[in-house]
Amino acid sequence: MRAVDIIAKKRDGDALTREEIDFFIQGFTRGEIPDYQAAAWAMAVYLRGMTNEETIALTLAMAHSGKVLDLSSVAPRVLDKHSSGGVGDKTTIVVAPLIASLGLPVGKMSGRGLGFSGGTLDKLESIPGFRADLDTDAFIAQLRQHGIVVSGQTHDLAPADGKLYALRDVTGTVASLPLIASSIMSKKIAAGAQIIVLDVKVGHGAFMKTDAQATALAELMVQIGRGVGRSVAAIISDMNQPLGDAVGNALEVIEAIETLKGRGPADFAEHCLEVASQMLVLAQAARDEADARAKLGAALADGRALQKFAEWIEGQGGTARVMDDYSLLPRARWVEPIAAPRDGFIAGIDAQAVGLTVMDLGGGRAQKGDAIDYAVGVVFCRKVGAHVTRGEPLFTLHANDRAKFDAARVRLLAAYEFSDTAPPPLPLIHQIIR
Amino acid sequence: MRAVDIIAKKRDGDALTREEIDFFIQGFTRGEIPDYQAAAWAMAVYLRGMTNEETIALTLAMAHSGKVLDLSSVAPRVLDKHSSGGVGDKTTIVVAPLIASLGLPVGKMSGRGLGFSGGTLDKLESIPGFRADLDTDAFIAQLRQHGIVVSGQTHDLAPADGKLYALRDVTGTVASLPLIASSIMSKKIAAGAQIIVLDVKVGHGAFMKTDAQATALAELMVQIGRGVGRSVAAIISDMNQPLGDAVGNALEVIEAIETLKGRGPADFAEHCLEVASQMLVLAQAARDEADARAKLGAALADGRALQKFAEWIEGQGGTARVMDDYSLLPRARWVEPIAAPRDGFIAGIDAQAVGLTVMDLGGGRAQKGDAIDYAVGVVFCRKVGAHVTRGEPLFTLHANDRAKFDAARVRLLAAYEFSDTAPPPLPLIHQIIR
Repeated sequence: MRAVDIIAKKRDGDALTREEIDFFIQGFTRGEIPDYQAAAWAMAVYLRGMTNEETIALTLAMAHSGKVLDLSSVAPRVLDKHSSGGVGDKTTIVVAPLIASLGLPVGKMSGRGLGFSGGTLDKLESIPGFRADLDTDAFIAQLRQHGIVVSGQTHDLAPADGKLYALRDVTGTVASLPLIASSIMSKKIAAGAQIIVLDVKVGHGAFMKTDAQATALAELMVQIGRGVGRSVAAIISDMNQPLGDAVGNALEVIEAIETLKGRGPADFAEHCLEVASQMLVLAQAARDEADARAKLGAALADGRALQKFAEWIEGQGGTARVMDDYSLLPRARWVEPIAAPRDGFIAGIDAQAVGLTVMDLGGGRAQKGDAIDYAVGVVFCRKVGAHVTRGEPLFTLHANDRAKFDAARVRLLAAYEFSDTAPPPLPLIHQIIR
Repeated sequence: MRAVDIIAKKRDGDALTREEIDFFIQGFTRGEIPDYQAAAWAMAVYLRGMTNEETIALTLAMAHSGKVLDLSSVAPRVLDKHSSGGVGDKTTIVVAPLIASLGLPVGKMSGRGLGFSGGTLDKLESIPGFRADLDTDAFIAQLRQHGIVVSGQTHDLAPADGKLYALRDVTGTVASLPLIASSIMSKKIAAGAQIIVLDVKVGHGAFMKTDAQATALAELMVQIGRGVGRSVAAIISDMNQPLGDAVGNALEVIEAIETLKGRGPADFAEHCLEVASQMLVLAQAARDEADARAKLGAALADGRALQKFAEWIEGQGGTARVMDDYSLLPRARWVEPIAAPRDGFIAGIDAQAVGLTVMDLGGGRAQKGDAIDYAVGVVFCRKVGAHVTRGEPLFTLHANDRAKFDAARVRLLAAYEFSDTAPPPLPLIHQIIR
């Protein structure tokens, strides 16, 4: 078997066999197939596509390019959720302890923010002491002891994906459905969870801009997961405005805790309940969504979810007292409300612009490895659909640099669209794919 | 300007600007754009194609990636011919001195054989002392002094093409029309000739298997040449059987000399006259083809062409006496006629199989850098269309190794197709594109 023949076969639009894909990914992982051959192959995949069978084979080849976690010694069926990335998405911080509080083990490897999109690990690291860099043994130990763990991907998982992603980033081959789906799913599979709910974001503030793109990605990932014997469902959820009110690491942790206390913003709380109920139904821990909602409501109401949050954070070295004393979290020097510039309905808040603004405040990364300022960000007072009167507070801006504060204020105001009539409501959930 | 954006633009099927192509090729030549980006780009070009304007820009960018020979100090209009490669193609060895004997300067950079396809330089190097590795100064000196030079491409010409070709070879991006055409034409342009006749081979023994492919390549190269101000014409000629009777380096030199003496095989002699007359007409050294044929016939008949051959070979260090004494050329140990296995018409001789057989005898290269045995090869007694009687000689085999001799005999006999009825004649020239 020769790499060049496999490239040519895909170039000509033919489907590769499992053996060919294994040969190529193994050779690439070991450095025997050079980057330039992988780059030509990735472009051929981008332009010619892949069948579902090929995508499943690619996912498995990448998952098995390194260690594949076996969590069966902890529990036969560990749960995971994955978000495709957006602005203000702190869902994991609510859903993971909520599900775990019902006795279902949640083991999740999460990511860091890049560009306009935030990362759960960065948000959690705004909690003093929290460790998001567990090795495999510590990951399993935390899961066994507390039934909940959220940590960064260890370097020994799916190394082929890391290597291929770096190459795709510089060769114009990122936006390929089979390559995106196999990248996400190879990591999920290597991380060991058996039950996976995918939260695919769609809209201005997401990587998938249209329903068609998001649906295609979600369906492909569900098929891949099923093809390798995992239980998978996907939610397609709206990211045309930020999710919840807070955007910025520590600010989002506060909002997540408030939500666990039953006081979160309605849209975000509802989103968390939807994701969590899909997880319960998929895990057969609830008869149906109504039953799931009832169980979740009880765990929130009687404090079990909040208690599990505290146990989780402490287990990973964090200061759980933040939930009773937000002043233990980083706090920005300038915290000021910004007034509505006019009367009218809020017709739109450009989520991507909000994400980029928070990044420029220091709350995100322009490039991998950039340092994060956990304190900065924005908290919206009113969102799309609300009517505001000129002069009333529109959002509160948190910044540690006056020049950046001023730039962010201008940029955030420009991210709003106002109208004189009530805009059509933004949906929260576009579709559920089971 | 970023390489990744140029890759993405081509990936999406958009035409690149001249500036973008220059940026990419210059960066690639200097090593600032890595192989993996060039590989992804080449695959995008392969699958998305290029407009004629893009292909012209690419050709010029590669031609100007190194030195571009200025031959105007020698003559305002130097002639060149180029063959796309085939089996038994020793045309240059006849046409170059024939044209030069009429006072028109011929300056040609030629190639070496690889795989089934022979190379003019290898054939010439079977002449004792002949030097095919002239540097630029020696190339120009030989052209000035003798009006004829055929040498290898110097390393300082079109380095981007050499680098890109090596990459295409291992990334499945060889068979792309704009990449093939720009590769050939960038070298032709850098080598300085103003008048270029392209001999595009079509058939089983050529890289272009169909008339449609060959025509598309020829038309594109003619357009590129015109686009950069050169006079270009293309001949599409048949390569369904070997050209002439001899295949093998020294054997082909003998056949070329015989042709200069007016005793060459009819098909090969006619092919040479066609190529040469197109060159004369294009150079406006003949009114029309009939006039060209008359001039060429005279130069052959009165010995001027043969005399120019001797001058050329001696100028480049070779032993011109080979033309009077073929025993000065390498001679194989076993030279034996092989009999026809049956009565019938010869309906086909698989040129590619012949080329590969001669390669395996030692007369060609499986890989770049392999040594060549100049003596070995095959001389056909009868070709497609001829009727043979069982037992009469079909071809003469020249080998230096008995086991290889036996293997070649079997393989060559298998390359023949016989029929009981006269087959339709094979055309010599399919088309001329001016």
